[in-house]
This record gives sequence, C-alpha cells and structure tokens, in this order.
Amino acid sequence: MVKIAIDMMGGDEAPGIVLEAVKKAVNDFKDLEIILFGDQAQCNLNHDRVEVRHCTEEITMEDEPVRAIKRKKDSSMVRMAEAVKVGEADGCVSAGNTGALMSAGLFIVGRIKGVERPALVVTLPTISGKGFVFMDVGANADAKAEHLLQYAKLGNIYAQKIRGVQQPSVSLLNIGTEASKGNTLTKKAYSLMEAQQDFKFTGNIEAKALMTGEADVVVTDGYTGNMILKNLEGVAKSIGKMLKTTLLSSFKNKLAALVLRKDLNTLTTKMDYAEYGGSVLLGLNGIVVKAHGSSSAKAFYSAIRQAKIAGEQKIVETMKETVGEGNE
Amino acid sequence: MVKIAIDMMGGDEAPGIVLEAVKKAVNDFKDLEIILFGDQAQCNLNHDRVEVRHCTEEITMEDEPVRAIKRKKDSSMVRMAEAVKVGEADGCVSAGNTGALMSAGLFIVGRIKGVERPALVVTLPTISGKGFVFMDVGANADAKAEHLLQYAKLGNIYAQKIRGVQQPSVSLLNIGTEASKGNTLTKKAYSLMEAQQDFKFTGNIEAKALMTGEADVVVTDGYTGNMILKNLEGVAKSIGKMLKTTLLSSFKNKLAALVLRKDLNTLTTKMDYAEYGGSVLLGLNGIVVKAHGSSSAKAFYSAIRQAKIAGEQKIVETMKETVGEGNE
Repeated sequence: MVKIAIDMMGGDEAPGIVLEAVKKAVNDFKDLEIILFGDQAQCNLNHDRVEVRHCTEEITMEDEPVRAIKRKKDSSMVRMAEAVKVGEADGCVSAGNTGALMSAGLFIVGRIKGVERPALVVTLPTISGKGFVFMDVGANADAKAEHLLQYAKLGNIYAQKIRGVQQPSVSLLNIGTEASKGNTLTKKAYSLMEAQQDFKFTGNIEAKALMTGEADVVVTDGYTGNMILKNLEGVAKSIGKMLKTTLLSSFKNKLAALVLRKDLNTLTTKMDYAEYGGSVLLGLNGIVVKAHGSSSAKAFYSAIRQAKIAGEQKIVETMKETVGEGNE
Repeated sequence: MVKIAIDMMGGDEAPGIVLEAVKKAVNDFKDLEIILFGDQAQCNLNHDRVEVRHCTEEITMEDEPVRAIKRKKDSSMVRMAEAVKVGEADGCVSAGNTGALMSAGLFIVGRIKGVERPALVVTLPTISGKGFVFMDVGANADAKAEHLLQYAKLGNIYAQKIRGVQQPSVSLLNIGTEASKGNTLTKKAYSLMEAQQDFKFTGNIEAKALMTGEADVVVTDGYTGNMILKNLEGVAKSIGKMLKTTLLSSFKNKLAALVLRKDLNTLTTKMDYAEYGGSVLLGLNGIVVKAHGSSSAKAFYSAIRQAKIAGEQKIVETMKETVGEGNE
C-alpha cells in the first residue's frame, strides 16, 4: 500500500480536476491510499481509500512563496507537506504555486542529509517517443559544478527507478560536444563527471540534439534548464499557431486540414510534456510532485501515478543510500 | 561607394555559392566594390568592381581557431581581416570556421577601445515576421553584468542602423519577467540596465515569449544565447521532421500535403533565420559578418548586403562614439 497526500486547492481548475484525477487513480490502483487536503465543503468524493482533511486556508498563485509557507499554516499545501514530513504519506502532489511548493519541499519535507541542493526534474519528449529526464529546470538559478554532479546522481536513480532504464546514459547540456567547450561551470562539471564511476557519463549534449538525442538523463543548472524548458514550450506553441493559421488560410487548406486533423492531434499530444506527468523535486526526504498549473485531470492523474511509483520504488531511500551522507 | 572584403574559401560549398552571391550583389548594388580573397584558379568571376587577391592557404572547419589565425598568414580569412584592419575595406564576410573568424575579428581587426567584449549578433524570426536582434550567441561563454550592459548598447545601435528601428526596445532574457527573478548575473544586469538612459530598457523577457514578443533587441550571455539558438534550430527541425512523417504516413495525408505544400514552404522560409542574413561580430574596429556555414547563395548574398548597409550606416563609427572610450 502506498499513501499519497494531495493538495486539493492548487491549480487553475482546482478542486474539480484534482477530484476527477483522484477518483480515477483510486479506482485504477487498488494499492493506493489518498489523503486529500482542502476545503471539505467542495469535496464530493466518497471512497474508503480517500481520507479528507479540512483546511481553512489556501496558497494562491500570487502569494510570495516563502512567506506563504511560513504564514499560511492551515493551507492545503503546507498541511500536505507536513503529512510527508511526519511519515503519514510517502509523497505528495500539488498543481499550485511552484515556488511555494518548492519552499514547502525545502522547509517542511526537508533535504536528504548530504544533498546540497534539490533539483526540479521533468521528462521531456523526443522524436522517438522515448523521452528523457531533464534537470534542474529551476530549483536553483545559481549552481556550482558540484551541484551538477549531484543532480546527475539523482537523475540517474530517477531514470532507473521511475522510468525503468537499467543503465541510463547521463549527458551534460553544453554549447559544444567537445570536452573543452562551455563556460567555467560546464567545463568544471564535465571533469567531475568524467572522473566518477557512479553513473554512465556520455559527455556533452547540445541543445539542438535534445529532441533527437539518445541521452536518458540531461543535466544542467536551473537557470539554463528553465530557459530551455520555456523555450521549448514557446517554440512548439508558436509553430503550432503558425501552422494553424496556414491550415485555415484558404478553403482548400481547410479541407486538407480536415483530412490531417487526427494525425496532427496525435503529433501535438506527442509534443506535450504534460503527458509525461509532473515535475518532481528530487533530493528531499519524501516525494514532492508538481502537476502543471493548467493541468487537465489526465495530467494530474499522471502526476499521482508518478508519485505512487516513486513511493513503491522507494527512490527516497535509494537516494539517501547513494547520494546522501549515509553513503560517505 | 562601400568596399567589402570576402573570404572566397569559407563554408561548405565554397567557392561556388560565394561567387554566385558576389555576382548577384555587384549587379544589384552599383555602389558596391568587392575584394575577393582565395584561390585565383577557382575564380570564374570577371567584374570591374570585383578585385581578386590570390591566397595560398585556407582555414578549414577542423582548424583550431586561434592557432589557425596566427599561423596561416596567407589564408583567405586572415588576409580578408587584414584588409579591414588597414582600412582598405569597410567590412568583411566569411562562411568559414566561426571560431577562427571570431579570432580574426579580435586579433586582427581588433576591438573598439572601451568595448570589453565583442558580441555575436543574429536576427531571429518572430511570428509577426518582424524579427528581433539577439545577442550574444557565443562570442563569450562567461559574461559579467557589465558586458551585458555593453551588449545592450551595441545591440541598440545595430537595431537602429541596420534594422531601421527608431527607438528599439531592449529586453534582458531571463527566467521570469519580474525584476527579482534570475541568477546572480541577470539580477545585476537588470539593475544596471534600469539605471541607464542610453537605450529604452523594457525589462525581462522569458524564452517562451521570444517568438511572440515585442522586443527589438534581446540581450543574454554567450552561453545562454548559443544554447537558445541551437535549441530553436533543433526544435524547428524536429517538429518539421515529425510533421513530414505525418504528412507522408498515408495516401490521404499525401494528397492533403500536396494541397498544402506551397503554404508550408512559405512557413518554413519564415522560420529560417538564415533568411535574415548572417551573424555579426559587434564591438570591433570594422564590420565582420559570419554567413552560415551551410549557406545558400541567397543567404551569403544577404550577408553581403548586411555588411554593405553596416558600412553605409557607419555603425562602427557610431559605436566608437557611443560605447567606446571616446564617449567617456
């Protein structure tokens, strides 16, 4: 049995899509228990494996993250994180304020001893459909080479345990493939990664090769990672928009578009990284999953499943043994 | 009359496409003179405004940049840069080894006194078709906030003189739009830009807004800029590839693709930043334009025109007065 704490109030369409996703999850997984945190009056869910805990506050998208976590003690997000901290739940999922969730992770759930900085991880699509683990996408804007090395170790475990890759290839995002390329940070990170034996380091990967590349894990600092993530999002959206304009620009194009519609939708789904689940804050004493703010029930469901697998696979325990101080 | 020095031997399809582009340029612009550097035996061009100077060496894509510039004294690239240095030519264009061309710019043409670091500038497409000036895309992997401020000043002049924007809006690429967002570098650069009066600073811009954004100039460090440039390239290519696969996946799709072909080609052209000319190394005592290595004659022609306009507009002189030491 895995127990997941869920923030009912976070995200653009909460609690509606959250409840829909939870309902589907407990029906699909007989070994899943949920603790729902939020406004009891808005909860229409009755299930013997779902416990509802009433909270009087909620953290909004406008709240300043650290302050909100410190002051809104009875918010659904804070109480959800506390359930993980005290060991009542194996992990938690929220679609709320990203900064606040990261603060809740850091200050309430807490870091694994020996992990200097937690990292935010996403799974991004590739042409082949295989996808890859990408981190850090914004937990820390300023990283040191030693942090990148730790990210790589955490990402390696994540790819093994959650994505089922036996021996993941781990690459460093850089502006050239040669060892001598990059800025001070990446050059130093390269030599640290080359010198270790904990994971299979496959050298530098360029940003243009991300979607075609063969790396299972790609490591970068939070500033660059966040930049790349938003750029991918922006370009995909812009190209989609331009394509749509083209498809609607004449009667004959509209007819052609009608023929292509189903296949183009499949293509769009393949490009949509929300389909791959939420982003995960790694390096903490518990599993913290951020579902996308504009999540559909389907994406929130993926995020719950992700947290469940992480709980079953005991990735926190593995990280403690491998990366944490217990290892040294 | 503007005089441009050209490296006949640089690029994947040199000298063929170089000669084709030069021929078209001198025919189109009656006030343009060209000095061609390269192997005379391979030059089939006879024109009263084209002078050919024979060189016995050439710099290849495999050459180590700085060493090549220092040792291959009779290479087409080195001699082209020397023509700019001594004032025989207003600017130069090469599609050769990018690193070597940057070294030739730095060590032969030389920096404007007071400019700490030159920056590599490209013009990138936007959905509206307006495009924007983006820099630095890789001249310096490690930048300081003061460098970003200088880039902004150089980019501002470039947008005015070359792109004809009267009062360009200059934005800082960052991972959030608020002033408090970013890493140490961008936070400091933000406050420097906010404090000055030399250009119209319009705050932070996120990577997802680049193609839809309204900024005329976007400034970032060379590591991030190069990363974004390659990412754009990679994503556009990958989406194109996936789209093509979809369009060829069935007989009915092929028919639909036939209908759309012309409009889809227009779309592809709009996305192709080679159409906007080459990249320019700004901050030097002369104009140095890098045409894309896989340039078509059309792209090389755009690069020549770009160098010509820069010469006419005397952007080097303006930069000396505005950014160089003469200003202080």
